[in-house]
Amino acid sequence: MTDLRRVDAFIDSHLDASLDELAKLVAIPSVGAQNRGLGECAALVSELLRARGFTVLVLASGGAPVVFAERGGRSARTLLFYNHYDVQPAEPLELWESEPFTLTRRGGSVYGRGISDDKGHITSRLLALDALLDADGELPCRVKFLIEGEEETSSVHLHDFIVREKSRLAADACMWEFGGVDHREVPLQYCGLRGICYVELSVETASTDVHSGMGGSIIDNAAWRLTWALAHVKGADGRVRIPGFYDAVRPPTARDLELLAALPEVADEYRERWGVKRFLRDLTGGVELRTAEVFEPTCTICGLTSGYQGPGSKTVLPARASAKVDFRLVPDQTPSTVVSALRAHLDAGGFSDVRIELLGGEPPARTDPDDPFVDLVCRTAEPIYGMPMQKTPMVGGSGPNHPFVHVLGLPVAGAGIGHPGTLAHAPNENARLDLYVKHAKHVARVLTEFARK
Amino acid sequence: MTDLRRVDAFIDSHLDASLDELAKLVAIPSVGAQNRGLGECAALVSELLRARGFTVLVLASGGAPVVFAERGGRSARTLLFYNHYDVQPAEPLELWESEPFTLTRRGGSVYGRGISDDKGHITSRLLALDALLDADGELPCRVKFLIEGEEETSSVHLHDFIVREKSRLAADACMWEFGGVDHREVPLQYCGLRGICYVELSVETASTDVHSGMGGSIIDNAAWRLTWALAHVKGADGRVRIPGFYDAVRPPTARDLELLAALPEVADEYRERWGVKRFLRDLTGGVELRTAEVFEPTCTICGLTSGYQGPGSKTVLPARASAKVDFRLVPDQTPSTVVSALRAHLDAGGFSDVRIELLGGEPPARTDPDDPFVDLVCRTAEPIYGMPMQKTPMVGGSGPNHPFVHVLGLPVAGAGIGHPGTLAHAPNENARLDLYVKHAKHVARVLTEFARK
Repeated sequence: MTDLRRVDAFIDSHLDASLDELAKLVAIPSVGAQNRGLGECAALVSELLRARGFTVLVLASGGAPVVFAERGGRSARTLLFYNHYDVQPAEPLELWESEPFTLTRRGGSVYGRGISDDKGHITSRLLALDALLDADGELPCRVKFLIEGEEETSSVHLHDFIVREKSRLAADACMWEFGGVDHREVPLQYCGLRGICYVELSVETASTDVHSGMGGSIIDNAAWRLTWALAHVKGADGRVRIPGFYDAVRPPTARDLELLAALPEVADEYRERWGVKRFLRDLTGGVELRTAEVFEPTCTICGLTSGYQGPGSKTVLPARASAKVDFRLVPDQTPSTVVSALRAHLDAGGFSDVRIELLGGEPPARTDPDDPFVDLVCRTAEPIYGMPMQKTPMVGGSGPNHPFVHVLGLPVAGAGIGHPGTLAHAPNENARLDLYVKHAKHVARVLTEFARK
Repeated sequence: MTDLRRVDAFIDSHLDASLDELAKLVAIPSVGAQNRGLGECAALVSELLRARGFTVLVLASGGAPVVFAERGGRSARTLLFYNHYDVQPAEPLELWESEPFTLTRRGGSVYGRGISDDKGHITSRLLALDALLDADGELPCRVKFLIEGEEETSSVHLHDFIVREKSRLAADACMWEFGGVDHREVPLQYCGLRGICYVELSVETASTDVHSGMGGSIIDNAAWRLTWALAHVKGADGRVRIPGFYDAVRPPTARDLELLAALPEVADEYRERWGVKRFLRDLTGGVELRTAEVFEPTCTICGLTSGYQGPGSKTVLPARASAKVDFRLVPDQTPSTVVSALRAHLDAGGFSDVRIELLGGEPPARTDPDDPFVDLVCRTAEPIYGMPMQKTPMVGGSGPNHPFVHVLGLPVAGAGIGHPGTLAHAPNENARLDLYVKHAKHVARVLTEFARK
């Protein structure tokens, strides 16, 4: 029997050392979208794992390398941790209160790009392993890590990688990269992730920008073509106009709605956090808002660019315009179906001049909320958080859980250091140190329980 | 009688000295939109005029200073030159083949931002004055210059300035800032300018950008709001949807259509210059294309900006989005009417969240194509260009000719160094030296003829 008091004491007393490791990871700007620091960060992650006695392989994926690590343990059961070492761009830089790539401790939190998503999850999990090794001299079960470098750019090579490395990745369950508490400090268990289909739409109407006084009435304007194409894709009523887009949407089950109904009201918290006065359509809160949030597909413009964007006025008719557009998909939608239908819809609307580049796609996937591994992860939270994790059937974000569920055949459960103000993907991304410590203690319990089964 | 052979010889032999002056002007990046170098450029322009014996005043306008200069001459008649010393931004910088703010001579041309629009017009006109002073020791008539610094930012203060300084600016005719030859090398006389109403539309939907996986189905997206608002303003059929927008449009007169019909076909030249395959609607060329080009109002998106615009993907739901939109106006549309109607139309469409900032406005104005001063300027081109200037009733671009026509009561005629490949407002703006010399010789003839009347 692992002495969990000793484990907890180790975690409490080794926080600073763990944060030192996190600071080193944060200092490497491993921004996937900008293709910076990825190899360097993979090397540091490998070094951290080797220091814990893991056998580490840095495997080519076709893009950023995948760090695979493995170490045996007391039991024959195998837990696979999925994490990623890449981060979102830090832009807009001027909104950061401290340097994005320097771990900065303020109050009870640490700030920096990737602190929460996902580098802090890596180091807090390593802290849990350190504590278990300190207590027992070995791990309770076999542990594998798959730490990729393309999560923030839609994990474009991961699916094929997992198919290729299926036997190496064999396990009994998968611990997901993230998790956390809600605004009530209740730890939440998410039993599924929406899929994503991220495209760039672009138009080129001329070989050069034109004086707007010259061409305005007689030639096409790339910015207008893009605007109309976008309005053709989604209307002001919020409905995606692509024929068949909603056909594959599977509505939530009775069990899903039961889990959603048990969740707390989020409306006020969302209004406060995002500074919004109202929600879309007639949503005001309740189970309707929570259902819409995760069981509906979306079409989001993530960025628009064309022509002159500086101060003041420039009278130019732009030759080029582009938009980044992100579709969040729910079961059983797939990225490939969406891209084909989008192409056909643009063509049918007279927008065959609008080019589509697929920047990344992942199908949605879910784990049964009543799977025994999900139950284990939820139950073992209780001694740490004062309550078991509350189950929510689906999360609005995306991730490459599809191949873990459907290729490796694993139940996937999450837990982590996140909180409502964690600002993942935004300036001033942060982690609360109390939650960092709790997550390490929780992971130690997951491993010891899991090993016994 | 002025010895025009001596004048021409002087111009030919003093080209390099004139280009040295132009190089000094180009070296000052007097970019109005970026509020750079304006005072410095006004000072250099003043120095150039004082060197020709002009009395110079640098007058406050409320924005960039206005250079006013005056010198008497043999006759009591007064010709007012209107020019501007500000330039368009040089961006996108990477498309320039030489430094934008360094006059660079390649082949028979000079390159640099403002070379054609409008600094080269200033120096070629000064070269004409130098030649006349060399020949006669005095100017043929009284000459005034009004050289402003806000032309590229819609001359926001010029109208009030002209009203205020009306008596100082009194003249018999006005020579406009630009002009040039078409693709046949025929010099063109433009007898009117469209007006402009330049606005920035902006939307803010939240206090912070949001992870697109979180808010996508439940909160507003600034980029979508902007897209739909823009599509509400102008449809994919190219028609502006603002009620009443076309009501004040005065169709071309029979004389206008006669002048347009006499102009050459431009379709092939435009397709080549701009790299476009087709024109809007069913336009293929002919008088229909030329009429549409100048007698129709426009609504042009000059720029779009929102969210993430870097390489790759970032999954963000933007809190802010904005568009720069330029309306070109024809008689009798006015900027203020357009702005009010736009506000009402956005509100009526449910877009009261879209903010409108007016960045500049000028009403359209025209001079009678058969005005005697227009005839004089056209006729005096013949010895230089081998033909008189051909009259075109209206030009698609805009400029502040309204107060010259309607406040000062002057006929306005243009002539200049422009040519179809001059790339005003675009990278690699240039002037051909043969046209630079021709314009100086033409201006010398305009002054001598004008003085005699």
